Amino acid sequence: MRNYIADPVVKRLPAYYRHLRALEKMGILQISSQDLGAVMDLTPSQIRQDLNRIGAEGRQGYGYAVPDLREHIAHLMGVDRPHRMIILGAGNIGHAVSLSSSFPLEGFETVAIFDTDAGKVGKTLAGLPIRDISELDAFVKSETVDIAVIALPADVAQDMTDRLLALGVKAFWNFAPVDLHLPADAVSLNVHLTDGLEVLSYQLTHLND
Amino acid sequence: MRNYIADPVVKRLPAYYRHLRALEKMGILQISSQDLGAVMDLTPSQIRQDLNRIGAEGRQGYGYAVPDLREHIAHLMGVDRPHRMIILGAGNIGHAVSLSSSFPLEGFETVAIFDTDAGKVGKTLAGLPIRDISELDAFVKSETVDIAVIALPADVAQDMTDRLLALGVKAFWNFAPVDLHLPADAVSLNVHLTDGLEVLSYQLTHLND
Repeated sequence: MRNYIADPVVKRLPAYYRHLRALEKMGILQISSQDLGAVMDLTPSQIRQDLNRIGAEGRQGYGYAVPDLREHIAHLMGVDRPHRMIILGAGNIGHAVSLSSSFPLEGFETVAIFDTDAGKVGKTLAGLPIRDISELDAFVKSETVDIAVIALPADVAQDMTDRLLALGVKAFWNFAPVDLHLPADAVSLNVHLTDGLEVLSYQLTHLND
Repeated sequence: MRNYIADPVVKRLPAYYRHLRALEKMGILQISSQDLGAVMDLTPSQIRQDLNRIGAEGRQGYGYAVPDLREHIAHLMGVDRPHRMIILGAGNIGHAVSLSSSFPLEGFETVAIFDTDAGKVGKTLAGLPIRDISELDAFVKSETVDIAVIALPADVAQDMTDRLLALGVKAFWNFAPVDLHLPADAVSLNVHLTDGLEVLSYQLTHLND
């Protein structure tokens, strides 16, 4: 994997994308590195450096064209193409991810949900039937699956990931509170919800230091 | 706010805490910076630098005492003290946060849930009644509230935050896809779920570059 854009820049791309979409929605079609920096809480020089790194050059006295830059970043992140997701685990996280009303998941379509619980299997979630886990292999072999959402307890997350890897799934959005072990040709992103809560606790604890 | 520990170190504290708890559970009570580095995917020198920064010195030829280090970090993050949370919004995110079976929220207790939807108010979630938003002010004035979970749509998140700030709430765990504007004496942590999904999309897109 040729990591031609440094990780910190990659991690900032969604924030660029989010702010550019908001700006465009407000009718702002052109922005300077100064103004974009103010919106994003970054220095103008950091903005220019980041955007230069992804091949987007601002023009002297003009800045950046908001729609062009948004499209460029969308293409770079691959979010201008649809992604088909399956959700493993129809618990609370599975519910929150499948029902995207609280956060937009444009271009990311949930195509199947699996669980082992007989009490859940057959019920409908986000317009999809909750399938028994025994149907997983046949489903993944016959359908295109881009991303697996691991919404499972910690103790079964790795086993399920190994099973999905054997079926050819390459990308994992992991909500289980463990780090997944993956081969070099697969990728994962961990959502450790409690980590954020603990950082918030730290900040609150030291608010008056 | 005297920021005596740099942000990147603070952001790594939850990972230290998580790994130390896992090690302790496995009966590993002593660990070298080499081994801890291997577990955490950091260099031994980075481990020593981070831990030195938080006042935890390893001993030559011994390393670190796992339980002591875990307790030290818990105290530093304030997670050895209970936190009372209220949840604004009984939608999917509100459900996922209140029903903590998918991720542990030790020490973080949800004490009330509020919504504006008459169809939800009065129903029970995680053993708590969903309260009408009109009860918010009286509740916050009479009870201790450490953290507000903003599980609301983007367009109402800031208004609700302002209302809570006026009531004296100082910490916000924000799941709305907007950045909250806060005074200097309040803190927030944003969970932008789609940001992670977009980073994952980037990694998947560039897997074979």
